[in-house]
Amino acid sequence: MVHVAAEREVTELQRKYLAAVSSELHAVIPHELDGPYPLLRYHLGWEEANGAVREDGGGKALRPVLCLTAAEVAGGDWHQALAAAASLELIHNFSLVHDDIQDGDVERRHRSTVWSLWGIPKAMTAGNAMRVVADRTIAMLSNANLPDACVVDASLVLTERYLEMIEGQYQDISFENADGVTPEQYLEMVGRKTGALIDASMYLGALIATQDTAQAEAFGWSGRRLGLAFQIRDDILGIWGDPAETGKAIGADIRRRKKSLPVVYLLQKAKGSDKKWLHGLYDADYEMSDADVNRVLEIMELVGAKQYCQQMAEDQSRQADAATEELPLTPAARDTLRALGEYFVTREK
Amino acid sequence: MVHVAAEREVTELQRKYLAAVSSELHAVIPHELDGPYPLLRYHLGWEEANGAVREDGGGKALRPVLCLTAAEVAGGDWHQALAAAASLELIHNFSLVHDDIQDGDVERRHRSTVWSLWGIPKAMTAGNAMRVVADRTIAMLSNANLPDACVVDASLVLTERYLEMIEGQYQDISFENADGVTPEQYLEMVGRKTGALIDASMYLGALIATQDTAQAEAFGWSGRRLGLAFQIRDDILGIWGDPAETGKAIGADIRRRKKSLPVVYLLQKAKGSDKKWLHGLYDADYEMSDADVNRVLEIMELVGAKQYCQQMAEDQSRQADAATEELPLTPAARDTLRALGEYFVTREK
Repeated sequence: MVHVAAEREVTELQRKYLAAVSSELHAVIPHELDGPYPLLRYHLGWEEANGAVREDGGGKALRPVLCLTAAEVAGGDWHQALAAAASLELIHNFSLVHDDIQDGDVERRHRSTVWSLWGIPKAMTAGNAMRVVADRTIAMLSNANLPDACVVDASLVLTERYLEMIEGQYQDISFENADGVTPEQYLEMVGRKTGALIDASMYLGALIATQDTAQAEAFGWSGRRLGLAFQIRDDILGIWGDPAETGKAIGADIRRRKKSLPVVYLLQKAKGSDKKWLHGLYDADYEMSDADVNRVLEIMELVGAKQYCQQMAEDQSRQADAATEELPLTPAARDTLRALGEYFVTREK
Repeated sequence: MVHVAAEREVTELQRKYLAAVSSELHAVIPHELDGPYPLLRYHLGWEEANGAVREDGGGKALRPVLCLTAAEVAGGDWHQALAAAASLELIHNFSLVHDDIQDGDVERRHRSTVWSLWGIPKAMTAGNAMRVVADRTIAMLSNANLPDACVVDASLVLTERYLEMIEGQYQDISFENADGVTPEQYLEMVGRKTGALIDASMYLGALIATQDTAQAEAFGWSGRRLGLAFQIRDDILGIWGDPAETGKAIGADIRRRKKSLPVVYLLQKAKGSDKKWLHGLYDADYEMSDADVNRVLEIMELVGAKQYCQQMAEDQSRQADAATEELPLTPAARDTLRALGEYFVTREK
């Protein structure tokens, strides 16, 4: 069940940072009517496909919030990290635009995906443009009154983490058609695909605040664990989430045969005829019936898939907490970090 | 006809630089057997699809050669610019991997394209990985004993030119289905899609050699013009090139309905029934007969498409030369730059 105090704290952080992040993003994305930029603004939820202005839906902006939180709890001025925060959000969105093509998904957050409206070639290019705007944005750090060495380090670390993210995406694509992926392999993949950029988020925030790479590394490691906790909880909500909260149907991720952690665990743990039936089901591509989905849910219950996943998420959250234990943080800073970890593993949406 | 002395000089430049560029590239591309890296090595021509080592075909490496030439003629040590040269080659190859997906091309340089072997999702990711390895490579400039300001400027300019390249790609995709594209619009697009990265090549070489942004800008501008000259000559060879030299069939670019400069010019200049027939032909998608190709060639002859294009190429080459006129270069340096320009507009392959 959601940890109410932690949720309140996280909502508070979002309230504090999101408007500034949003204006930073609006400042760096070109306003041009030609070229790939209308596709970027559409994807970010600022415009309709015809260019009409749209009420900004305001997503979670997880990476910016973690970056700015890290800057602040490490004792810095979070405004200095805004370029980094915006850049991280753009890199994340670049990867979503390409992911949607790769997965053939026609909808994201109840809107048509970019490729489904403009075709694959233009969508690929729009994703690439998003990525370059991110580069240009992180380069603005050189105007943020930081030592050159810090600017160079920030850019190097972002590149390395970004490469890890790409490697994770590649692994994820490979897993889709692979048999016998273990939960350990899955978590290693998620550590790259999702964890690496969240690592970079907290690393950059702390680095900009302290210019101390050892501290930044501790925050980065903590971020990576938080990222894993977040993603595992996401996998749980994709199957057992309340449709009214998540906006997804019950068992949504089962129906689309998404090989998220509960399924990876299930395919490893199921026995006998259950196992045989499951492998047949996941190797096939016919549309699952409600009865199929229910039987998958029953076998998950039998092997304790949900508890296993929740335990993994909580374990990552504990590791996130431990990573910053040795740092000279204020009690309030520690409370904030703990709230993030608690919220990530108890959130219902 | 090819300018023999100029060709000899360019061959000399390639001989001097290519081995060093190749070892730099081999040093920065991970040797891993897993993940996207085998696809990168395949695309670069180092490996077969099954991972077997392959005699390095050794392409033109236009961008590295121009980068290192600029460094040397500007009075620097070209070895200092090797990271930049390798990075430029990787960015170029990233764009080729994505281009092949966007154009649906199943062959490049007589080999299957990456996407045609591994599928679109993996090929997209391999392209993205190539791009990040390029970022990581340019970041190595910070170990090349250069002032921090120079490293930061190099990275900023590369980002800006790279964004222009993406914008050019987007424009190119839009032109494919657009009617009435003018030669001026086409050249503006090519200036971005091809010219911007060649601009960056010479800019970076000169910047690294001199740490003087005014000089680097003159070289960059010269590079952009050379890039246009090179591309226009490419368009010419794609239609009138000798198959024995280019490795392409006669009229190859006509048959695949590529909207290169001669075609853009033709569609503007043809009159009456020719014009009507041409527009019908280019709007349709049936396979062209030899008679179709011949009739297109005849109308091109009629409107003087080849001469027009050659004139445009030579004009760009002259502008390239003029761009470095005011710089304090040695006579030998000037000869080298002139040879590049002459070769680019007279080459037969």
